[in-house]
Amino acid sequence: MINSNTIVAIATPPGEGAIGIVRMSGENAFDIAAKIIRNNKKFAKGYKIHFVKLYDEENNLIDEAIMAVFKAPKSYTKENIVEFYCHGSPYILQKVVQTAICFGAKPAEPGEFTMRAFLNGNLDLTQAEAVANLISAKSAKAHQVAMNQLKGSISNKLKHLRQSLIKLTSLVELELDFSEEDVEFADRTELVNLIQEIKREIKNLLESFKAGNAIKSGIPTAIVGKPNVGKSTLLNILLNENRAIVSNIPGTTRDIIEESIFINGYEFRLIDTAGVRQNTQDPIEMEGIKRTKQALKKASLIIYLFDISETSPEEARKELEILNPPPESKRILVANKTDLLEEIPDKEDIIFISAKHNQGIDNLIATMTKFAQELTDFEVLLTSPRHYNALSEAYEAIEQVENAVEMGISGELLSIDLRIVLDAIGKITGEIVTDDILSEIFSNFCIGK
Amino acid sequence: MINSNTIVAIATPPGEGAIGIVRMSGENAFDIAAKIIRNNKKFAKGYKIHFVKLYDEENNLIDEAIMAVFKAPKSYTKENIVEFYCHGSPYILQKVVQTAICFGAKPAEPGEFTMRAFLNGNLDLTQAEAVANLISAKSAKAHQVAMNQLKGSISNKLKHLRQSLIKLTSLVELELDFSEEDVEFADRTELVNLIQEIKREIKNLLESFKAGNAIKSGIPTAIVGKPNVGKSTLLNILLNENRAIVSNIPGTTRDIIEESIFINGYEFRLIDTAGVRQNTQDPIEMEGIKRTKQALKKASLIIYLFDISETSPEEARKELEILNPPPESKRILVANKTDLLEEIPDKEDIIFISAKHNQGIDNLIATMTKFAQELTDFEVLLTSPRHYNALSEAYEAIEQVENAVEMGISGELLSIDLRIVLDAIGKITGEIVTDDILSEIFSNFCIGK
Repeated sequence: MINSNTIVAIATPPGEGAIGIVRMSGENAFDIAAKIIRNNKKFAKGYKIHFVKLYDEENNLIDEAIMAVFKAPKSYTKENIVEFYCHGSPYILQKVVQTAICFGAKPAEPGEFTMRAFLNGNLDLTQAEAVANLISAKSAKAHQVAMNQLKGSISNKLKHLRQSLIKLTSLVELELDFSEEDVEFADRTELVNLIQEIKREIKNLLESFKAGNAIKSGIPTAIVGKPNVGKSTLLNILLNENRAIVSNIPGTTRDIIEESIFINGYEFRLIDTAGVRQNTQDPIEMEGIKRTKQALKKASLIIYLFDISETSPEEARKELEILNPPPESKRILVANKTDLLEEIPDKEDIIFISAKHNQGIDNLIATMTKFAQELTDFEVLLTSPRHYNALSEAYEAIEQVENAVEMGISGELLSIDLRIVLDAIGKITGEIVTDDILSEIFSNFCIGK
Repeated sequence: MINSNTIVAIATPPGEGAIGIVRMSGENAFDIAAKIIRNNKKFAKGYKIHFVKLYDEENNLIDEAIMAVFKAPKSYTKENIVEFYCHGSPYILQKVVQTAICFGAKPAEPGEFTMRAFLNGNLDLTQAEAVANLISAKSAKAHQVAMNQLKGSISNKLKHLRQSLIKLTSLVELELDFSEEDVEFADRTELVNLIQEIKREIKNLLESFKAGNAIKSGIPTAIVGKPNVGKSTLLNILLNENRAIVSNIPGTTRDIIEESIFINGYEFRLIDTAGVRQNTQDPIEMEGIKRTKQALKKASLIIYLFDISETSPEEARKELEILNPPPESKRILVANKTDLLEEIPDKEDIIFISAKHNQGIDNLIATMTKFAQELTDFEVLLTSPRHYNALSEAYEAIEQVENAVEMGISGELLSIDLRIVLDAIGKITGEIVTDDILSEIFSNFCIGK
């Protein structure tokens, strides 16, 4: 019912630009476009572009533009698609959309083009979700993860899982067939092994979620230290490292730069800590430490900076411990102001830098990069809470299956739990889907995508 | 020398969107694109689109995109052009640009694509300038004026002027040939008539400049009145009239809406007046009136609003006169609060409204529209100060010619003045142009245009 309408939307970001795009998809896209360009002879072949004049319903020239024609089913939505590449004037783009609406199109909802691509079988739901991730990816790694997902990394993983589950189901059914004869189950070991394998695979995907999230939103990172240890100098150096890449990206606001550092393709999202002071007897300072402790709970990476001319590495380690960093967090101890030392001590687990003289920073960056690489060392990274929740459900159900097998419960009951696992996977790929889920997913998209 | 390079730029507005465009123009555009898509077989035919994969120089997949190929000279710049329609991710677009640069392209300067279109003869300078006007046009009329200019309205006008000038020159040369023989000039009347005609045409263009500017930036409009006459209610109604059109245009900020009213395709730019109060003996109020008077000097249209239940039309007219409105401005006297009257008086030159009950507004809008239409009733509208200055020069020179003819000065001296007129026209169309003028014109363009 959705597909019977032709939708239209501006597909480029708001504002003035060199080129702006209006796109249209649906049964009547070609008819409506023919009315706008006052010519119906340009739609015979897909994957063609034409130089056209666009007119409004009162025959006023709106623009001279390039029109691209994509014939169903060889298009993004698998419907007829027309795209107009106009002068990047908000007035013109709006006028083209209004004219299309006047000729029978309806304004597209956010993500409606991609929703049609999903409904018409061009993408599964994980791939459709990847489109939004791809557009908002700000780091090389986040981009890569979204691109892999668009290319089907999660779909393929789930396809493999589904095959194992179908095999498991057939084994269980085999047992069902023989159960009346009261024989021992044919190959119990194979069944148990298969369940273990499926559990491992789901577990692995679930474990990748934290890393996937860190990639998508940036690795939560705290740079902590006492006053005057050189925090802001270090921060500036780290920001400068990648200034060239970050600040050239249009649309990246200063706020984002101030909150994230991009290093070797990874985004480190800085957590604002209240700051730590020395005098821990002072109630105000106590409060500062308390708030820093709380902020640190969110950190995956803690960089503790200290002044090596005043604090020994052992003292620094103790200072950090007082802040009670979460046990699973990675901590990097960074000794600053080596320029004040005569000789740099040799300690493997400490990074020695002189922020002032830009020395030793490479070492810190290498350590941060290595941590990010290890954190995200998964074949497939889960980034969506929706996928995580569905897989958690699947995991619980497969554990039920495991228990049932151990307890010798009948195959019929096993089948119910197996169904739950298969359904959970179906929800992720979109084979099982409700309108609510669809509208939740696609409402986060841009209009025109 | 500019054309030997291949330029690359993002052509869509900054920020995330459904689709983002990277465009490339120049000799090596196809070679560079072939390296990015790892395929050199797609460039044989122009006006074709292809589904392609984009790779960076290290062979990482950047995006799956649509590529459009335009072969020289059938392109905007008359050079080879490649456009990539990518996912609208700032990261991806930046990455594609970086890769193109890595393969030998250079980042385009603002307006460099259009500058090449001009240098390669696809547009003259007035048309190139129209491209920027077209993109920034916010009202239907401003859009129409820019579109006409792009289609050559000014160029054609100037071509006609040039023909007259060439005819004039040949007449003068005829006189030159005979001058030694001391005969009276062959057809003096024709010469004088031709000069008059050229003067009229230039004068007409010069006079259109004020209107052109009003169209381009909005007609400077002041809504003035004493406190509590209903100014803000009226303003809200006028804004609401066109809210649907204005607020739907992406990128139109609230500020712009608050400063301009769009009525029937015309933009009325509101001038902020200090406001007028009754008690003119109060020095503070005197100051208010003084500042309002100054602001009114900029107004082409003054809407004087008064409370008909308290002020008679005659009094209102006097109140407005005290403000000393510029003589060439159009004034509209609007009597508000007709709902407080038993009978609406019949006065042709007054518009009676009830802002509270939304009555009589149609009448006001019709009057404003009629004024805008009359103001801009020129065959061609000059919108550029550059054109205005060059034509002013031309006008001075043609007046010199006229004087010289009257005084019987020799044809050789006339030729110099005629040359000045022709040069001024050449400057407008760009036949005569310096690098400084070009860089001044195109530096106001978007990058990618």
